[in-house]
Amino acid sequence: MDKLSLLSKFTSSCPFLGRTKTSSLRALCTSASPHFPSLTRLTEKATECPVMGAALAKRSGQLVQSFASLAQSIDVVKIHQDKGVDVTSGSIEKCPHASKALAAARTAEELASAKKRSDALKAAKAAAPQAAAPKPSQGTSPDLRQCPAHTGSFNYEHFYANELQKKHDDKSYRYFNTINRLAAKFPFAHTADTKTEVEVWCSNDYLGMGNNPVVLETMHRALDKYGHGAGGTRNIAGNGSWHVNLEKELAALHRKPAALVFSSCYVANDATLSTLGAKLPGCVYFSDSSNHASMIQGIRHSGAKKVIWKHNDLTDLENKLKEWPKETPKIIAFESVYSMCGSLGPIKEICDLADKYGAITFLDEVHAVGLYGPRGAGLAEHLDYDVHEAAGQSPDPIPGTIMDRVDVISGTLGKAYGAIGGYVAGSAKLIDMIRSYAPGFIFTTSLPPVTIAGAHASIVYQKTYNGDRKLMQWNVREVKKRFSKLGIPVIPGPSHIVPVLIGDAAQVKQASDHLLQKHGIYVQAINYPTVARGEERLRFTITPGHTLEQLDRVAVALDDTFTTLSIKREADWAAVGGRCGVGSVVKETITPIWNDAQLCLTGPAALVPRRTGEARRVDAHAIEVARQQFDGLLGLRMRTGTAGRRPLDIPSAMPLTVVA
Amino acid sequence: MDKLSLLSKFTSSCPFLGRTKTSSLRALCTSASPHFPSLTRLTEKATECPVMGAALAKRSGQLVQSFASLAQSIDVVKIHQDKGVDVTSGSIEKCPHASKALAAARTAEELASAKKRSDALKAAKAAAPQAAAPKPSQGTSPDLRQCPAHTGSFNYEHFYANELQKKHDDKSYRYFNTINRLAAKFPFAHTADTKTEVEVWCSNDYLGMGNNPVVLETMHRALDKYGHGAGGTRNIAGNGSWHVNLEKELAALHRKPAALVFSSCYVANDATLSTLGAKLPGCVYFSDSSNHASMIQGIRHSGAKKVIWKHNDLTDLENKLKEWPKETPKIIAFESVYSMCGSLGPIKEICDLADKYGAITFLDEVHAVGLYGPRGAGLAEHLDYDVHEAAGQSPDPIPGTIMDRVDVISGTLGKAYGAIGGYVAGSAKLIDMIRSYAPGFIFTTSLPPVTIAGAHASIVYQKTYNGDRKLMQWNVREVKKRFSKLGIPVIPGPSHIVPVLIGDAAQVKQASDHLLQKHGIYVQAINYPTVARGEERLRFTITPGHTLEQLDRVAVALDDTFTTLSIKREADWAAVGGRCGVGSVVKETITPIWNDAQLCLTGPAALVPRRTGEARRVDAHAIEVARQQFDGLLGLRMRTGTAGRRPLDIPSAMPLTVVA
Repeated sequence: MDKLSLLSKFTSSCPFLGRTKTSSLRALCTSASPHFPSLTRLTEKATECPVMGAALAKRSGQLVQSFASLAQSIDVVKIHQDKGVDVTSGSIEKCPHASKALAAARTAEELASAKKRSDALKAAKAAAPQAAAPKPSQGTSPDLRQCPAHTGSFNYEHFYANELQKKHDDKSYRYFNTINRLAAKFPFAHTADTKTEVEVWCSNDYLGMGNNPVVLETMHRALDKYGHGAGGTRNIAGNGSWHVNLEKELAALHRKPAALVFSSCYVANDATLSTLGAKLPGCVYFSDSSNHASMIQGIRHSGAKKVIWKHNDLTDLENKLKEWPKETPKIIAFESVYSMCGSLGPIKEICDLADKYGAITFLDEVHAVGLYGPRGAGLAEHLDYDVHEAAGQSPDPIPGTIMDRVDVISGTLGKAYGAIGGYVAGSAKLIDMIRSYAPGFIFTTSLPPVTIAGAHASIVYQKTYNGDRKLMQWNVREVKKRFSKLGIPVIPGPSHIVPVLIGDAAQVKQASDHLLQKHGIYVQAINYPTVARGEERLRFTITPGHTLEQLDRVAVALDDTFTTLSIKREADWAAVGGRCGVGSVVKETITPIWNDAQLCLTGPAALVPRRTGEARRVDAHAIEVARQQFDGLLGLRMRTGTAGRRPLDIPSAMPLTVVA
Repeated sequence: MDKLSLLSKFTSSCPFLGRTKTSSLRALCTSASPHFPSLTRLTEKATECPVMGAALAKRSGQLVQSFASLAQSIDVVKIHQDKGVDVTSGSIEKCPHASKALAAARTAEELASAKKRSDALKAAKAAAPQAAAPKPSQGTSPDLRQCPAHTGSFNYEHFYANELQKKHDDKSYRYFNTINRLAAKFPFAHTADTKTEVEVWCSNDYLGMGNNPVVLETMHRALDKYGHGAGGTRNIAGNGSWHVNLEKELAALHRKPAALVFSSCYVANDATLSTLGAKLPGCVYFSDSSNHASMIQGIRHSGAKKVIWKHNDLTDLENKLKEWPKETPKIIAFESVYSMCGSLGPIKEICDLADKYGAITFLDEVHAVGLYGPRGAGLAEHLDYDVHEAAGQSPDPIPGTIMDRVDVISGTLGKAYGAIGGYVAGSAKLIDMIRSYAPGFIFTTSLPPVTIAGAHASIVYQKTYNGDRKLMQWNVREVKKRFSKLGIPVIPGPSHIVPVLIGDAAQVKQASDHLLQKHGIYVQAINYPTVARGEERLRFTITPGHTLEQLDRVAVALDDTFTTLSIKREADWAAVGGRCGVGSVVKETITPIWNDAQLCLTGPAALVPRRTGEARRVDAHAIEVARQQFDGLLGLRMRTGTAGRRPLDIPSAMPLTVVA
């Protein structure tokens, strides 16, 4: 039966279809209703039909049911919990299920409204047949002509207020604490009041590089010579030697042929993933369910098909990969260190699957660069620690290493490097394609030379000296030990992330406030929607700048907070079967990423913790390497005792111990 | 006829439908084909049907035709020309028509491929009936099971190379010039070689604020006290007093209740428009066809319906607005100064239409903030110059003014303010909603205190002193006069943008290279896709830092360039009927935004141009106002002769004239 004879069957059996031209029908079924955007104009029209109207009302009910059943299904609930998404609330951005379900719900709602509206219009017509119909204007939808005169505009302010009320209602409305981190007193900060100082325990300036002397010195010099802003896009007046050199440095750090710097790593992920997915023909994304918002957005913006696999579940990933032909372009997108729980992506195993199924890999190393690997290149480097250490500062790829096998690495300059900006590193052609096509890279002012200079100095320092990241890991171990002794429930993991489970939205905010107000300790409450309801936590970040005495004190303060607020301890979680790996019956043995040998826990070169009152350690060699690298651009170096700014006097209030 | 009886008619007449379960059919028509993502699995299956296969092949042809006819239609061609988009090439990002047409073309292509594939599979089966069928695995599509073994993966590197070749082929591949702008020698820069200096004539550091002494002084002080990076998102440890204060300042600048700062104005536009459009129920965007890429992306990412109106055409806008009910949420998105041609958005008239049709307005003032208005708040402020001047530095809204009527203003810190970052200003609830919901704001490290401090100092200086923007406009007039005398074709406009029409892709690059190599003048070639083919141009930006002698020299250099390369002058364009307003028969009289009285062209306080060798002018009062504002955070001010850094000695090589 061909299509035309089918259509003639329809038109003969329906009076509406019978008296409507084919061209009108085509227009009705290809354009959205101006009143209910999820419906076509034909569907809206159909709500007026005695036959189809009833069928559509039934369909509306079915959609609501399927929405409800979808929201209840075990897998979906699990993924929602992993992602901290509640389908019943507004945060659909992060969850494809919630998003689809909400779309279905919206269609259902609009179907119901359309039916109601057509009934109301009929009633209005019946009640006031004498009312003059507004003159139809060309190009408007037929339904508009039947509309009573509109009395007013949409109430925008009322709508904004409602959206904000939702945040207040579910306790996810955010009040920002004012925290001014002090360079000379790291890790202290003053609050909105310059006289009130607090200890910061949740900054992502993991290594205190935001106040490293060679970073600040380089920035002062760059500021004097090059001023503030870049003054243009990379293509128009905004491409300086600093930008070019930093990209070379980042490529060398990851031993990749090329790298590209963006305004932030959010933009790096968004721009790269959206461009790749849009360009590669028929591309399919395989996205870890715990991926960061920036990756989720980039994948969404690409318009490519997205398949979500369960967090770190290789079997689930493989099952999903094998559904697609090998020649279909595929990108597996995942992270090395997941920032809210501290779990690690199985990089090698994912590379194996990528090879097997013809995919490329996109690895977000945002919470790992600067912190792992002999040169701070991240977890991929750390997994072949000895090989990369032996290669020294060579920029060449080392075939067969995990870092070499990953296709695209994204990283940030805003966390361990204490600066601002983000980047991707990969093959020369891939990077050049992103550079040439990504609107988020092309159409924006490039980063200021002064911040690029600071970031570059930080990377050079950190790839030359690894004492900071070792001391940080040592401190992390010490904090975990202290918390564990007190029964404070730390979500177990092998990384530097120390998530303390609170498990209640009200309590986590109270705990954060109590620590700040009573103990002068600032650690932000992590709440829904960043984590799932019931998994609220305090996320401590421990730096090499925290002293032994501070580690002791934070444990005492947290112990007091748990007691004062009657927060569940490890044993309490064990009693209710455990949560987030806390209090589980089966205790997994977790090996830290930095092992004992790598940390130099024993022997003559053994790591020595920092004590309060002791000067900050800096590495003279790393400072010298950084300076020499920048002298070409910055000209004559200014030395103590000579005219101009003295090196290492910034910040002047901070005592420094120069490590030979 | 109800749906069930319709279905039974289908199933009885088609052997495939007859032997397939309803649940399987549902699955087939709701999931995408793994081989051809724009088709459902049912459509792919249908290519195997002797009846539907032929119909679909015909449909494929129709789609290709409609794609071609769409690409040829007058309106679309016009919009493409306005936007500089060629539907036949790869730059579909910027154009909804091209995007839709390309989607249609893709479906057509995939339909044809699917047909070909099913034929090939049939042929393969016929040729090798003895081949063992691969064991079907659960969850894979039925078609996969029929697939021959895949021999290889997608060739990613080959694909990237092809995409880059397209850029080379259409001459849109970009080679970045290395330009290091020198603070002490503004507007000079050194190239990749530190010894080669060139004059910069295309930077968006319009007022030279990137090297203003109070900006650099404030940044040095902020760097010493607060270090480099913010260390976290605004919610977690990255919200300093600097961020809070800057947002208050920006709200006051635009006399709005609130403002919000983003990593860049690209992000500000993208995040704000995508969040607003996604949130407002059934929202429709009305977007000027010349809008910047960041707005186009934001609108696209919102998923809201988008209607494009012809650049600055109020009749077209109104015709499109009136097609929608008044109560439908609508956003009119446009710019005040369009950066590539210098035309102005009719702000007042658009506000009138917004009121009439129940829309809100989103105004991008990126190329206007700092440059227009008595306090540099932009074009909306300038349009009520006297009223805003009389109100002094009051932060209060002035009802009835055009700036007050605009709902959302977006601006940048990276151009006239010489810094980095972007923002939006608007009602308290709107800003709070964006703050609470926009992923591009929430999930990214906030800007470093040091850059925020620089931007803030710049804004305070510019809202206190307006000599820089007046001198800039004076210089713009002088350059336009000189170019006009030489018959150099400047695209006419009332703003500071000086676009010199070249009209040829090869020539514009040659002209840029000739100016750089022979005259040491850097002005970037603006090429397709930033402007339409045939409208290639050199876009000069003139600053208050350019001296009279430099204005003379640039005209001579450009004259030489036109002669050497035989580039069309104004008379040549007139002879061919004109282009981009150059050489038009009807000469429009264009009144500059800054009129003669506002520029103080006569009288005792008349503007005096700067001469080469003359010290740079700075305003002592504006410096003092900025300093006092920051002393609270930065502590004791350091003065010449006392210990510590001396004010105004940065950059030390630059002579300064302090204006009383």
